[in-house]
Amino acid sequence: MLLHLLYLLAIIAEAMSGALTGMQRGMDRFGLCLVGTVTALGGGTVRDVLLGHYPLVWVSHPDYMFITIGAASIAAVGARWLRKGEWLFVTVDAIGLIAFTIIGCDVAATLDVSSSIVVLAGAITGVCGGMLRDVLCNQIPLVLRRELYASIALGAGALYVALQACGVAQGPASVIVLTCGFVVRMLAVRFCWQLKVFTAADSGGAG
Amino acid sequence: MLLHLLYLLAIIAEAMSGALTGMQRGMDRFGLCLVGTVTALGGGTVRDVLLGHYPLVWVSHPDYMFITIGAASIAAVGARWLRKGEWLFVTVDAIGLIAFTIIGCDVAATLDVSSSIVVLAGAITGVCGGMLRDVLCNQIPLVLRRELYASIALGAGALYVALQACGVAQGPASVIVLTCGFVVRMLAVRFCWQLKVFTAADSGGAG
Amino acid sequence: MLLHLLYLLAIIAEAMSGALTGMQRGMDRFGLCLVGTVTALGGGTVRDVLLGHYPLVWVSHPDYMFITIGAASIAAVGARWLRKGEWLFVTVDAIGLIAFTIIGCDVAATLDVSSSIVVLAGAITGVCGGMLRDVLCNQIPLVLRRELYASIALGAGALYVALQACGVAQGPASVIVLTCGFVVRMLAVRFCWQLKVFTAADSGGAG
Repeated sequence: MLLHLLYLLAIIAEAMSGALTGMQRGMDRFGLCLVGTVTALGGGTVRDVLLGHYPLVWVSHPDYMFITIGAASIAAVGARWLRKGEWLFVTVDAIGLIAFTIIGCDVAATLDVSSSIVVLAGAITGVCGGMLRDVLCNQIPLVLRRELYASIALGAGALYVALQACGVAQGPASVIVLTCGFVVRMLAVRFCWQLKVFTAADSGGAG
Repeated sequence: MLLHLLYLLAIIAEAMSGALTGMQRGMDRFGLCLVGTVTALGGGTVRDVLLGHYPLVWVSHPDYMFITIGAASIAAVGARWLRKGEWLFVTVDAIGLIAFTIIGCDVAATLDVSSSIVVLAGAITGVCGGMLRDVLCNQIPLVLRRELYASIALGAGALYVALQACGVAQGPASVIVLTCGFVVRMLAVRFCWQLKVFTAADSGGAG
Repeated sequence: MLLHLLYLLAIIAEAMSGALTGMQRGMDRFGLCLVGTVTALGGGTVRDVLLGHYPLVWVSHPDYMFITIGAASIAAVGARWLRKGEWLFVTVDAIGLIAFTIIGCDVAATLDVSSSIVVLAGAITGVCGGMLRDVLCNQIPLVLRRELYASIALGAGALYVALQACGVAQGPASVIVLTCGFVVRMLAVRFCWQLKVFTAADSGGAG
């Protein structure tokens, strides 16, 4: 299934991005693997803990963890080369964001929750991995500061839920959302779209 | 019901305080809404996850989330004015702290746990939202450093449980605890009461 | 039972280490008790939340919390002396790490999960308390940066699971793992063994 393949691609990309961030903070090999794994699997874990949806994905499929650990290790060894392929990363990461979001919506849709929670569960799956990475690396989560990252996850989730509510089947809906979400995300990165950042100056505070 | 009204007031106040903190850290509009929502609903979420009490409040009542998102947005736009009304904030926040604590105790009391856990569940509800806000904003949680904030939550919870153990009904007990807790909290703010801060100097460490 | 005794020793040591870390960050008395308690009981809590294993240990045994609060308070008062006995601490902490890991494996083994998750649950129990302590104190978790701490927890867990798979009873397996794990940990501290730290220089990044 397409979505499963994209999921694997996404956790590999996220694990590598986690490992690269950890390297910039002087973590050891174990730390890199852990941050990589948390980045890749953290979004789904937060979603499942919040929804009380047990067992967690990686508890029933420990092999996903081995994949992320492997990806993080490879990233640590090949960092010099990976940095040159930054655009490849951004691309895979964008696919991953949307794939995670769709998967998150699918999981929540199997439970007895309202549509807005389904959309939110999708966005949490897409975004929370990176947020945990940033907390572990002791920096303000990027997602709270930059680019249309979380907004795109929310938008993609809303579109996915809306399409299904209009009678579009799961398969076509996934393809449509993936395409639209990916294009918007790449445009956002390319043209540095971002939401207005409120600063202390705006608020007249001392900051 | 009084407590429900106070709860709404409290989540609005907390969402605004979260948004104002986020602004000082240069977050974008989405970040502000998220930090505001986490500040307002995080305490109850932590409590319910720790107690295994599903579904979470905001999963079954997504409308609370829309309220906090709205409050955070308003705070972002009106920050200049809100800062001038700081005392209003502190007042509403004090009411919210006690209201959250009472509600947290009520939730835990419906489960099969000991009295000390009921008190703790109340304090967690009152305090953890602000703690999550500070972790997301990359600062040491204020509650760990300043004022009689958490102590008041614990004290209010203990009083509430004790009153009910002595046969006072839930309604009167809530009113008594709200009044006492609010007064003590405002006095603590006014006179800068605080617990002794232990510093590296005390411990002879290098710090 | 030996393991229970070691568990008590371990939570006391961890609570003290949490309190001492909090002191270096200027926390008040409440903050110290909270950080101490989170350090001591956080590992098991993270494990149980991830595995959906309710009620949590400290919910059904609130007395453990009183023990950790007491230990943190004593640490705050006696910090000057405790720092002189640093080696005692490192020793007790090493025992605690292995004891936590064994207990974590035992808990996970009662659930229907694969061996790799049992090992991981052990390591999470041993390591996550310290990680939460560092996040609350706003520093990059030490465990991600230094020494063979987490690796030893993983190794101890793997050895414990392997021994039992080979037919060794729980009691002897515990003793063997405790001894080996303790010795390796003390050697790691003594000779500053550590995993290679990847830095921005390695990766050619600006870092």
